[in-house]
Amino acid sequence: MRSHLYHREGIAYDVLRYNMGWVDVDAKPIASRTGKALRPTLCLLTCEAVGGDPALAIPGAVSVEFIHNFSLVHDDIQDQDEVRWGRPTVWSIWGKPKALVAGNLLRAVADQALWNLDKQGLDYTVATKVVHLLTESYLSMIEGQYLDVAYEGHSDTELAEYLDMISRKTGALIRCSVNIGAVIGTKDTVRIKAFQNFGRSLGYVFQIRDDMLGTWGEEKKTGKPVGSDIRRKKNSLPIVHAMAQSKGTQQHQLKSIYAKNEISGQDVVDVLDIMATAGSQEYAENLLQEHGSMAMEAIDNADIAPTTKHEISQIVEFLLIREY
Amino acid sequence: MRSHLYHREGIAYDVLRYNMGWVDVDAKPIASRTGKALRPTLCLLTCEAVGGDPALAIPGAVSVEFIHNFSLVHDDIQDQDEVRWGRPTVWSIWGKPKALVAGNLLRAVADQALWNLDKQGLDYTVATKVVHLLTESYLSMIEGQYLDVAYEGHSDTELAEYLDMISRKTGALIRCSVNIGAVIGTKDTVRIKAFQNFGRSLGYVFQIRDDMLGTWGEEKKTGKPVGSDIRRKKNSLPIVHAMAQSKGTQQHQLKSIYAKNEISGQDVVDVLDIMATAGSQEYAENLLQEHGSMAMEAIDNADIAPTTKHEISQIVEFLLIREY
Repeated sequence: MRSHLYHREGIAYDVLRYNMGWVDVDAKPIASRTGKALRPTLCLLTCEAVGGDPALAIPGAVSVEFIHNFSLVHDDIQDQDEVRWGRPTVWSIWGKPKALVAGNLLRAVADQALWNLDKQGLDYTVATKVVHLLTESYLSMIEGQYLDVAYEGHSDTELAEYLDMISRKTGALIRCSVNIGAVIGTKDTVRIKAFQNFGRSLGYVFQIRDDMLGTWGEEKKTGKPVGSDIRRKKNSLPIVHAMAQSKGTQQHQLKSIYAKNEISGQDVVDVLDIMATAGSQEYAENLLQEHGSMAMEAIDNADIAPTTKHEISQIVEFLLIREY
Repeated sequence: MRSHLYHREGIAYDVLRYNMGWVDVDAKPIASRTGKALRPTLCLLTCEAVGGDPALAIPGAVSVEFIHNFSLVHDDIQDQDEVRWGRPTVWSIWGKPKALVAGNLLRAVADQALWNLDKQGLDYTVATKVVHLLTESYLSMIEGQYLDVAYEGHSDTELAEYLDMISRKTGALIRCSVNIGAVIGTKDTVRIKAFQNFGRSLGYVFQIRDDMLGTWGEEKKTGKPVGSDIRRKKNSLPIVHAMAQSKGTQQHQLKSIYAKNEISGQDVVDVLDIMATAGSQEYAENLLQEHGSMAMEAIDNADIAPTTKHEISQIVEFLLIREY
């Protein structure tokens, strides 16, 4: 990954290296906490699990991680988020116009990373398939982001609409990471299909847990106060559930809180109470476990080596219980 | 082009169709003035000129035009421009978050358009070459946009820096349009090289004329008041030249005007006077003609059919004298 952002000169690349957590704001190398690298890990591990050489999947893994990071740079502009992973976001340091362009640059670097697919001797038809999978998942991710913005402030988003939105916004790239690992690693359509199912369930697991942390996560672990998604009126599973399930005065109260321009600390407490009555946390936890089980079931059907299966189940386990 | 934006459902695509000038703000079909379609025209005409079948170049031509339009959607956000081609810009109607995402979507649609390269029976190595040329030019364009934002408000941009910036920001995609037409149309490296030179010169012609219109263009033709680039303190050839060539009190006056937050009507008149003394218009016109001659010289070296040569020279002529 680093080689792709170090072979070109220019301040725009310093901004991108900052975003990856490799340098500080003055472009000095640092060791900082970065992302979980979930997507490239899934890609390489899937490739290995289905019997392929993970080295062949590296260009795809790198590209997926750059696309993910590109989306974070633009997301932070949209949501006006000033901090991510404990560091000031790109736009909060360099301003929105530069952040917008830097994000687009990272998107292009992701495309360029794919040039290495062929160089590694991967079959042309497989390389083309990988490029198409990435473009499709990218399209789907952007469509999901558009829906997310479009639903903002709506108090009547249906659960089905919400699940469709997250399946695109977050799920698409996670599915894609798994899918490209699979198609690079094997031609066995049964295994490829099993990992497709795995990727689909894992996408839900990731976002449902994310939504739970945004509502009930502990500040000292997530870096965000309890109820931060409520305060920011973000589309998230707990609120969509509570809106749909709460009744009478509670539903009325919920809607009037969400109609406000600014949500107060007391409002957050009230919303959490309404969610408790509606059983939103149990609902989310059940849905989470359901998708976790489906993910593991898919892996059981893929007939893979026990050691790799153990590694994959550890990732699923982590995503089910993570607290940050 | 239309088929790529009509085969998917969703409001995000209505926004993109609006941006292309095909529908109004309520998604009703309209006949409106759209862009000049310069890039796809160059691509198809070049392919024909070198002896190829222009039909094979259509996916590339479509992709280039979508990338161009993507960049306009994001540019308008950055520059806070509320009107383009006489219509409200996407962000001014739907807000910046949606416009940002819609732009990214169009970028992905551009990638998807390239899938048709193979389907048309184009040789795999040529198709790959086209994809790489597009990614490279896209990278270069974004780097140029970053430099443009980074130079903003600087009063000491060197002419060489400025020319490098426009060669990337505007030149890259114009060069690419010509290059992909050439590599799809022929394997003759002499002709490909000749068209590379043509594309390079034409990129300068396009942007230099654009800069001249932004400073001295007539409002009733450009849709913008005389001196609009001055008022907006945009990086442009006339101002870079005047900064470098003006002397003594005039240079001092110029710098103090550009140090202001808001530039008044009188300031614009003063800057135009300083440019007149510095000979900025003659300088720009000479540079424009120089690149126009280089473009035509390159075509002379490509040994193409007289009718196609005539069509190409008409495009060059138009770009040299266009008033909008």
